[in-house]
Formats: sequence, structure tokens, C-alpha cells
Amino acid sequence: MTTNSAYEQLSKHFKKIHNLHHLSSICGWDQAAMMPAGGNEARSEAMAELAVMIHQQSTAPQLAGLINQAQAENLSTEQQASLAEIDRSWQQANVVPEDLVSAQSLAGSKCEHAWRTQRKENDWAGFAKNLKTVVELSREEASIRGQANNCSNYDALMDLYEPGMTSAQLDPIFDDVKSWLPELTLAAQEKQRSDHVIMPTGHFPIAAQQQLGLKTMQILGFDFNHGRLDVSTHPFCGGVASDVRITTRYDEDDFTQSLMGVVHETGHARYEQGLPKALNHLPVGQARSMGIHESQSLLFEMQLGRSQEFLTLLTPEIQKAFSGTDKAIYNPLNLSQCYTRVKPDFIRVDADEVTYPAHVMLRYEIEQALMNGDIEVDDIPELWAVKMQQYLGVDTKGNYRNGCMQDVHWTDGSFGYFPSYTLGAMYAAQFMTTIKQEMDVPAIITSGDLSPIFTWLKTNIWQHASLLSTNDLVKQATGEVLNPAHFKAHLQARYL
Amino acid sequence: MTTNSAYEQLSKHFKKIHNLHHLSSICGWDQAAMMPAGGNEARSEAMAELAVMIHQQSTAPQLAGLINQAQAENLSTEQQASLAEIDRSWQQANVVPEDLVSAQSLAGSKCEHAWRTQRKENDWAGFAKNLKTVVELSREEASIRGQANNCSNYDALMDLYEPGMTSAQLDPIFDDVKSWLPELTLAAQEKQRSDHVIMPTGHFPIAAQQQLGLKTMQILGFDFNHGRLDVSTHPFCGGVASDVRITTRYDEDDFTQSLMGVVHETGHARYEQGLPKALNHLPVGQARSMGIHESQSLLFEMQLGRSQEFLTLLTPEIQKAFSGTDKAIYNPLNLSQCYTRVKPDFIRVDADEVTYPAHVMLRYEIEQALMNGDIEVDDIPELWAVKMQQYLGVDTKGNYRNGCMQDVHWTDGSFGYFPSYTLGAMYAAQFMTTIKQEMDVPAIITSGDLSPIFTWLKTNIWQHASLLSTNDLVKQATGEVLNPAHFKAHLQARYL
Repeated sequence: MTTNSAYEQLSKHFKKIHNLHHLSSICGWDQAAMMPAGGNEARSEAMAELAVMIHQQSTAPQLAGLINQAQAENLSTEQQASLAEIDRSWQQANVVPEDLVSAQSLAGSKCEHAWRTQRKENDWAGFAKNLKTVVELSREEASIRGQANNCSNYDALMDLYEPGMTSAQLDPIFDDVKSWLPELTLAAQEKQRSDHVIMPTGHFPIAAQQQLGLKTMQILGFDFNHGRLDVSTHPFCGGVASDVRITTRYDEDDFTQSLMGVVHETGHARYEQGLPKALNHLPVGQARSMGIHESQSLLFEMQLGRSQEFLTLLTPEIQKAFSGTDKAIYNPLNLSQCYTRVKPDFIRVDADEVTYPAHVMLRYEIEQALMNGDIEVDDIPELWAVKMQQYLGVDTKGNYRNGCMQDVHWTDGSFGYFPSYTLGAMYAAQFMTTIKQEMDVPAIITSGDLSPIFTWLKTNIWQHASLLSTNDLVKQATGEVLNPAHFKAHLQARYL
Repeated sequence: MTTNSAYEQLSKHFKKIHNLHHLSSICGWDQAAMMPAGGNEARSEAMAELAVMIHQQSTAPQLAGLINQAQAENLSTEQQASLAEIDRSWQQANVVPEDLVSAQSLAGSKCEHAWRTQRKENDWAGFAKNLKTVVELSREEASIRGQANNCSNYDALMDLYEPGMTSAQLDPIFDDVKSWLPELTLAAQEKQRSDHVIMPTGHFPIAAQQQLGLKTMQILGFDFNHGRLDVSTHPFCGGVASDVRITTRYDEDDFTQSLMGVVHETGHARYEQGLPKALNHLPVGQARSMGIHESQSLLFEMQLGRSQEFLTLLTPEIQKAFSGTDKAIYNPLNLSQCYTRVKPDFIRVDADEVTYPAHVMLRYEIEQALMNGDIEVDDIPELWAVKMQQYLGVDTKGNYRNGCMQDVHWTDGSFGYFPSYTLGAMYAAQFMTTIKQEMDVPAIITSGDLSPIFTWLKTNIWQHASLLSTNDLVKQATGEVLNPAHFKAHLQARYL
């Protein structure tokens, strides 16, 4: 292949787009973790300018022709996979007209901004007004993408986050979960009724929590030569693969949330750090999907972090970090009970491992019906109340703030994202089943050297980036495509 | 004027360039203050890509025509000044070809990054290899600019930092300084011989130094809603006017360097924070020159910070910060003697006010000869040793780390910058002469409310940005153009 091949030209062009994304990621991280409030106006303008430039580069007129030409070139298997992802990326950027993108951006900003106040004021009527515009525009986008992909509106949006996933696949999976989850939740609560859990009390200084977080990241193999830990209001994993920026937030009355948050974000970070360096600049070099990304953070958090063995390993570190406080909480059994407590409640982001899927499924059903035109915005509150009652036995009637107004996702039109959370939990359980067949996971965690587990993840997940479809990736790693039975078995083993 | 006027179109275009500079400043700050080493390769590439885009926007084909058209438009005085700076900016950007800009950015990043390690290891040979590439590219740039401006290579580069300044003007000024500085240095040392200065000893924890620095910034009116203090190897003032990022470095054996470094960078920061917001996005809204910028940092550091009155004001804060250490050092007279101690030594950034100009003049002579092709990179160490001996009586032979490898400036090709430091010291002394004619500066400092001084600076310097030429700015503020006699008088008054 000559250096002037269409594929090489595409590769060079996407490296440019990658460089712009790099600047956007770092400045976005800075905005959330470093920037003083007074810097926001100028920063927002600079970021908007950059977004326009990224859009221009992603829709450059020569790309369509180059993709066509490259498809006729003699490409290696890797290059074919790369070209497929370039094509996918091009389709995504080009199928939606620019004025719709612009209208969505404006409506999303307006709705999200007003939501911050409206949520506090429980103002559903005010929120619904803005949300209707967002929904209208998202339906338009979904319809355009659906026609291009020959699928339903909702599936076209879900495909942005979870390539290849369809409602036809997901509906029976979630139907199955719904058939056993409410019962399992009740049984877990019943089993835990006699536990005497000592919740953390006392003053846990931020500096000590930070040191504990860094120590935990070290145990989890975070590469500090290619990343950092900082603070932001909403924890996230940002930056770029060569320099992954994770954040947490500290509560000086309770270290447990921040600590497990760090474990979660470290899972995201190690996936990014483990992506093949040579492909970092190409679409095929990115993480496979949001669900697979979440599978890594949840494998770290739920499969490793909340295990009795990991908490046993961490106990001396926790004792050292908070040496001045009451020691009763710092025994592995109590920590494990803190971290596996099941309690149906209002808020998704605070939910335990068992009730979390219920929060996701109710959102999935509502946003699916909303995008496919089966319901309207005005129907959301009642549906929410009915499903919360049905799945979790929680009454949210009239409590919009802690009900259908609690999440940021819908405010800017990110319909189709929610399923990724539970798909991630399912993939994580499935990966761990295979890992446990290949090695003695409890013994490895106990030893303090978790590298055999990370080597498995690198070999089977991280290094493949987007070179394989999700199905092929999962099948190659575990011998079967997504099988939610592993998630059910994990919950039963831990909670029954 | 209609909104479609050529001037308005230029204004809009330069706002776009300003936005790109914003991204570059923040990512550059991050690279120096936050980024782990492993992130450098990808960051350098992204920054190089951005530099190319800035260059493309700065050389957009329509600009020449728009500038011509705008010159015929009916513009206000402010707009005329703005257009002149747009023209200057255009000229600067358009004479250098794009591939040279890109090569310089890459070579500079590489050289600067390697220098961080090479300096520690006293590795001149390794450093020289990278520096030669940087020098070669800078000469190419200097030659192109020199031809366009009809001046010497070196003057063409100096003009980037100090618009209007030439070697023909500066050589006699520096020759004059050379005629009296060595003698004044000896006389000052002689006078200080009998002083019993107690130098700081003990452990000064970074956290306590940081708190002291923040408190000092508060006294100096730093706006924390539009800026931050962080740590980097080489202290600097970066970021953007709406979000100024200053850095320092801490030595736990001696707090005095870091403290006065913070005072210095705060001077830079207040100039940036005091620039007129409405003009931030235009070339005319930027600081007038590096020399004027340095005049603000040196007015803060040398004229205010090292005064007996300011150190008296800070003494209780210093005592509070380091309550566990020996108190003998913390009296204003002793602090003042610490901060005005004259001692010829290796390091420019650690140099006292009297010997500092010698460091600058030797660099000026070397970089001038280097850019004009009179010497080569390999000649630097010997020239350095000879001049250090001649001006300061200091032996630097073989000590590259504390000799010609001590500064960051040459690593990324910032030749022509050094004179600005001493020009700044001269302007600062001249401004302070005028301020003292208008108000009782010692009494104002003693009161703890320094705002009358800052109001003078805002009124006479900051708010004018680049609306006036350097000569007009200085003349309007002090009644005369640059007059180095004020600097000499200041040194004589303080040290003889």
C-alpha cells in the first residue's frame, strides 16, 4: 500500500480529529476539575469554537469519496476493521443535518440549564415544557438515523452508545430480569435484616481520603505515568488514553462513597490506558461501547472492589488512613456489609448493585416508548410512579425531583444511553465467571498482586479496542455472547 | 458602521483565533503544571496540530484584503489602534511558512521535555543535540522575519516580545549599565559585609508555604474567581485573562524564594486580570509587551515586595505560617536583609536585584550572536563561562546545569526574550518614581490596603492594553519615555 492510499489519507485525517478531541478532553477536564467559576464564559466560547471545528473536520467533503475508494483497496484485517469504524463515525456525523444539530445543542443547553433550578423546585410543569422541545428534536434525529440504519427510532439512538444492540435483543433480557429481580431484592433484604452494620462516622480528612484513593489505585494497577486523580462535583473518567484523568468527590463524614468511586473510575481508566497505543488516533482504537466501558468499571467496583477479599486487603490501608477514628467499622466483614447493603430507594446513582437494574429498566422502557412515539412527555410521571412501585415498591408520586427529574441524561437528549449501565453489569459478571474458571480470583486478590486479572482483561478486552464487534469480543473472551444468567448467578451467590 | 464592515469581520475572525489561543494556553499550562510525563508525546502532537490551525487562521487568505478595506473605513481611535495591532499580528504570522511553525512546535516540545531530565543530569551533549535543531529553526524564522522587517535576525525576534525595540537602542543602554554595575555590585557587597543576616533554616512544609502564598496574593489583590496558584518546575504566569494560572515551586528548606516568586507572578497576573474585558479577544486587548509585563511583576516584587514596609506587613503572616520554627529570622529588618542580599551567583532566577541585569546582558549577547550567525551552539558553554567571570566573577566551567542549561527560554526557541526582564526592571523603577510623586507609598503599604497603587497601575498601564505604543504608554504614565536613570537611582538608594 502506498502512503497516498485513500486509507492512509483517512487515517491522517482522523488523527487530526483525534488531536482536536484531545484538546477538548483536557480543557473539558480542566473546566470540571480546575477552572474557577469566573473562567466559565470564555471557556465555554472556546469549547464551542472547538466543537464547530471538530464537526467541520468530521464532515469534510472529501471523506465520503475517500471511504468509497478505501473500500476497494487491498486492506489488512485490522485496516478493514478500522475502515468500518471510520465509516460508522462518518455516518454518525453526516446523517444529521447541521441545523438540527445546532437546534438540539441550543434546546439541550436551555433544558439542562433550567433543570438545575427546576429540579430543586420540583417544577415538573416548567421542566416538561423544555423537555418537549428536546424530545421533539431527538425524535427527528432518531427518525433520520433510523431510516439510514433501517431500524426503529429508539434502536437508532441506542446504537450510538451500544453498536449492534437492538430492542429485539434487549427486551427479552430485561423481561427476564424483571421476572426475578423484585423477589431477589426482597430475599436479600430479608437475609440482611439481622446484620449489625456499623456505618462510618467521624471526621475523614480529604487529604487522608486522597492518599487512600491513590494507594487503592496503585493496588489496581493505575499507571500514574499516564494519568491523575483529582476532584470534581460529578466524578468522571476523562482526559485521553495516554493521560487519563479520573475524578472523585470527598465527603468528610463518610469515606466509603469516594473510595468505591475511585475504584469504579480506575476500572474505566485502566481500559483507556490498556487500549492499543498504535491505534489511539483512529475510531477503531477507541473503547468498544459504553456498555463494555461500564463493564470494566463495574468489574473493578462490583466484582473486585466490593468482594470480601479486596476489602480485607484494603482494611490495613483504611486503618492507617484514619488512625484517629473509631476502629469498629474497619473490619472486613463490616466493610463488606456496608458495601453490599440492599435498600430500594429513589435515586439511581446512589442505588446498590441489586436494585440498580430496576432503575435502568424503567428508564429504558420510558425512553424507548417516548422515542418510538408510543407515549408523550406528559405521560412520564405516572409511568414512573407505577414502575417504581412495581419494581422497587417505592412511592414517587408527585416527587419529581427524586423521580423522573433526577437524571441529567434526558435534559440534553441523551436517549438510549441508560441500558449501557446494566449491560455493563452483565458483561462484568460474565467476564468474571470466565476469569474464575481460569484462576483462583479470591487467592489472587488476597495476595495483593492482582496482575493476573488485569492481564486477562488486557488480553481479552482492552487490547482489542473496537477491532471486534461487541458480540465477537464477548464470545472470544468468554465462549458465548451476552448471557445474563451470569449476572443473576452473581447476585444470587452474593446476596442469597 | 454596519455589522458587515471589514473591521467587524476582522474582529470576528480574531475572536476565533483568540478562542484557539485560549485552548492552547490552558493545555500548555496543564502540560507544565498537571500532566504526567507519559502524556507528553500525544499532548505535543495535539498542541502542534493546534499551532498549525492557529497559524492557518492567522494567515487566512481573506485577511490581507479585509485589513486593506478596514484601513479605508471610518474607524474610532480605539478601532484604529485595534486595526494597527491586527495588522502587526497579521504581518508576524504571515511571513513564516506553515511547515516551519509546525517543525518549531515539535522541536521545542521535544527539547523542553528532555531538558527537564538533562538539566538534572548536567547532560550538555544530550541537550545540545536538541538545541541545535531548535536554533536552526529559529534562525530560519529570524532570517525570514528580518528580511520582512528590514532588520537584523536578532532584532526581528526581539520585536516579537518588545515591539519597536532594536539592538541599536538597547546596546548603548546595556553598555551604560555594564559601565557602573560591577562597581555598584562590589560597593553593595562591601556595605552589607557587616550585616548579621539570619537565613531561614528549618522545615517549611509545602502546605504552609502554599497558604502563605495564597494570603500574600490576597493582599496583592489577586482575583481568585479568575485564576489559580499551582506548582511547576519553572514558575510562570499562564492561562487566559479571565482565568490566570500562576505557578511557583516549593523548597521545604527555604520559604523565601517561593514567597517572592508568588509576589512576582501575581504582578503578571494582575496585569492580565486588569486588561479591558471588552478587548480580550483582540490583539489590541493584549499586554503591550513582555517588558511592560515584566515591569508589573518587578514592580510587585522589587518595588513593593522587597520593601521594608511590605515585609513588615507580611511578618505576622509568616510567623503564623511557620509557628514551629526558629523565630529569629522573622523580623522585618532581617527579612529585608535576606531579600536584598547582594551575592553574585550562578542562577538568574535566584539572582538578587543588583546582579540580575548581568545575567540578562550575558544572555542577550549570546543569543544575539547566535541568531545573527556569529557563534554556534557548541560555542555557548565557553562564552558563558567567560562572561560570567567577567560580569560577576563566578566560575561556571563544566557546570552546565547551573550555567547555560538553567533557563527554559532557549529550549523552545524563545530567543529575543531575555532583554525584556531588564527593560521591565527599568520601567518598574520609572513607574514607581512617578507613583511616589503622587502618593505616600510607604504609608499605603503599611496600612495593608494597597489599592491606591493598584488603581494607579490599572489607570495608567493595565486598562490601556496595547491601545498605545510602549513609548506613548510610558510617556503618558510618567511624562517621559524609557529613562534608565530611575533604575540606577533605585539601586543606589537601596544598596549604597
